[in-house]
Amino acid sequence: MTVLLFGFEPFLEYKENPSQLIVEALNGSTILKEEVKGVILPVEYEKIEDLIVTKIREMKPILTLGIGVAPGRAKITPEKIAINYKYSREGDNAGKKYKGEKIDPLGQDGIFTNIPVEDLVDLLNENGIPAELSLSAGSYLCNNAMYIIIREARKYNSLGGFIHVPLHESYAARIQRPIPSMSLDTMIRGIRLSMEFILTNKKENLTFS
Amino acid sequence: MTVLLFGFEPFLEYKENPSQLIVEALNGSTILKEEVKGVILPVEYEKIEDLIVTKIREMKPILTLGIGVAPGRAKITPEKIAINYKYSREGDNAGKKYKGEKIDPLGQDGIFTNIPVEDLVDLLNENGIPAELSLSAGSYLCNNAMYIIIREARKYNSLGGFIHVPLHESYAARIQRPIPSMSLDTMIRGIRLSMEFILTNKKENLTFS
Amino acid sequence: MTVLLFGFEPFLEYKENPSQLIVEALNGSTILKEEVKGVILPVEYEKIEDLIVTKIREMKPILTLGIGVAPGRAKITPEKIAINYKYSREGDNAGKKYKGEKIDPLGQDGIFTNIPVEDLVDLLNENGIPAELSLSAGSYLCNNAMYIIIREARKYNSLGGFIHVPLHESYAARIQRPIPSMSLDTMIRGIRLSMEFILTNKKENLTFS
Amino acid sequence: MTVLLFGFEPFLEYKENPSQLIVEALNGSTILKEEVKGVILPVEYEKIEDLIVTKIREMKPILTLGIGVAPGRAKITPEKIAINYKYSREGDNAGKKYKGEKIDPLGQDGIFTNIPVEDLVDLLNENGIPAELSLSAGSYLCNNAMYIIIREARKYNSLGGFIHVPLHESYAARIQRPIPSMSLDTMIRGIRLSMEFILTNKKENLTFS
Repeated sequence: MTVLLFGFEPFLEYKENPSQLIVEALNGSTILKEEVKGVILPVEYEKIEDLIVTKIREMKPILTLGIGVAPGRAKITPEKIAINYKYSREGDNAGKKYKGEKIDPLGQDGIFTNIPVEDLVDLLNENGIPAELSLSAGSYLCNNAMYIIIREARKYNSLGGFIHVPLHESYAARIQRPIPSMSLDTMIRGIRLSMEFILTNKKENLTFS
Repeated sequence: MTVLLFGFEPFLEYKENPSQLIVEALNGSTILKEEVKGVILPVEYEKIEDLIVTKIREMKPILTLGIGVAPGRAKITPEKIAINYKYSREGDNAGKKYKGEKIDPLGQDGIFTNIPVEDLVDLLNENGIPAELSLSAGSYLCNNAMYIIIREARKYNSLGGFIHVPLHESYAARIQRPIPSMSLDTMIRGIRLSMEFILTNKKENLTFS
Repeated sequence: MTVLLFGFEPFLEYKENPSQLIVEALNGSTILKEEVKGVILPVEYEKIEDLIVTKIREMKPILTLGIGVAPGRAKITPEKIAINYKYSREGDNAGKKYKGEKIDPLGQDGIFTNIPVEDLVDLLNENGIPAELSLSAGSYLCNNAMYIIIREARKYNSLGGFIHVPLHESYAARIQRPIPSMSLDTMIRGIRLSMEFILTNKKENLTFS
Repeated sequence: MTVLLFGFEPFLEYKENPSQLIVEALNGSTILKEEVKGVILPVEYEKIEDLIVTKIREMKPILTLGIGVAPGRAKITPEKIAINYKYSREGDNAGKKYKGEKIDPLGQDGIFTNIPVEDLVDLLNENGIPAELSLSAGSYLCNNAMYIIIREARKYNSLGGFIHVPLHESYAARIQRPIPSMSLDTMIRGIRLSMEFILTNKKENLTFS
């Protein structure tokens, strides 16, 4: 079986994206005998849906996890819900902007992840990795990807979710604001631990709430 | 010759102090053939002056560096100035509080470090370690220690300064607030790099500004 | 016709709740000939559903608006979505805590407000009242009230939403942290402007997205 | 006798400066029979020293108070100390930048205000105006002005100090970040109360610490 991991390319003023570095580091590794397949998404509203839908249909992963950077956050933040909503003052990498349009015209307003994010947060903290539950993945590409991941994962009775990470230390060192960061090693360890925990607990989670 | 490194014990609600962990990790190491001597200070206004004065007089270090934790800060912050001032709403570990009294009745209002903190910040950032110049070490024990360190270092024509560090990751994982942190390894690397840089540049800095 | 305005009593360490002060100030006023009825809710999970359902059924308001304080926020934040979720590390005023239970076992994961919050934010800012769109009303009593308000408003083909406000200045002056605040006059003006704007635009909004 | 109040013109991306609005509002008013004279300073390192020195020499005010905006701060922050230091990544309104040069080559590293800022903070909070002590006026024009004000005030055995204020609400409404603000009325009331308090307590403060 497969674990599918999505990360993103650099965007806006962020010339490096830790989600890409994390996914590339974990790509090809195995978690409880499941192979991890990493895919880097373009930061373009118009491209990500097809890419995600196609990859999930091809690989039929037991778990699909999106990783995204949330500059300004200080902790790893597993997301509880994706919302059917695109709103961004700044364009994506193709300059595309939205002011409140739906991701899926027929979709629900909000859909919960079927990943036990509350327990996952406790697990990460118990392992010395600062984590906190998030109730908003924003309204930019990360939320968009999360919405598609959960919707598709449900179709294949599999697990789908999204985790936001802070900026990595070496990039925060290039920004002249007191912006929080986390070491890349800690974040890679955190995402690996997350996949292990989710797979270990998968049976209880596969029936959708 | 010696490099004298001061850290602090835990205090208030912080049951671990990264400054202690950093100083203990670097104690006994050598930096450009200088031996590093680490000393952990009590978080008690009434005790630190004698301790710092005695250690500096005994060891005659070429560099005395205080390390302290500044919970809430996201980057390593070398301090520019110590102020002749004690003010804290919360008591020290002996319950002692002050509302604006002087550290040294005869001392100047503020004294600059003779460490090239501006260049040090650039050096740390260039090495991927998030750093930022700080113009206030506060008015609690860290500022108090910094004031004594600079005053004493000047007496022996040596270098004296202070560096604040964020909380370490594993401790931030025990706090249910979105508080920034940094990995202990990165902070230890940062303080070692700082000592190297300061010693390498010591000649230009020994005449006091 | 009626505009129903809900505020909350004080809770946790906040001995004054600006939402109560705002709702009491606007209670009995008229907005575009509609009478404003203010109701102060207890901060108790077990009590608010019945209270909200009963009031909406009795008054059949054209607009139901919940107001809540979000200590730490710097701007008035109209909320986009309520989520079917109760999670709080701290108990409510009856000591009740939840770790992820649903508000409505049969309800959707998330439900959008049918208030034009994007345009409302622009309207407030154009009137010099700092406002910002929020995509998370949290998982405490405010989100819980918002979920019930929207669900019930839909039953009566009326408008339902929620607006978070910062702490009021005079209360922030009693807190020894650099916590943002806003003057009560500005917040009262902001909520009055919001009701006016929503009612003026009500025709387009009554069909649910 | 006179109270001299300095404010600043707009600078960088801030097209309105609340310090200017406050000083202009209080200019010409009387505080305990003392006339308030307001002067708006250019945000130019090379111009402010002469202007401040000349005005203080001409008017011989009993109190000279600088007001400046500190975007991002949430409370009125009376400053404790000015430092003999110019450092700014961004230029002043003439494009001038510094990386650590002294304001006064012969001056002390830091000089305390002789205004009872600790008690002033308590006074403002007791009057419902959020205030907090600040131990750093930064290293841009505000700190530069404060340093000159205190140095000159001492020469004439008068009182000199500096108070930072947040952005005013109507300007924060034009910034798409969750930046704190305060109502202009509250800030004007706060600065008037500050002058009253300082003058009422002036006898004890005129001997310099």
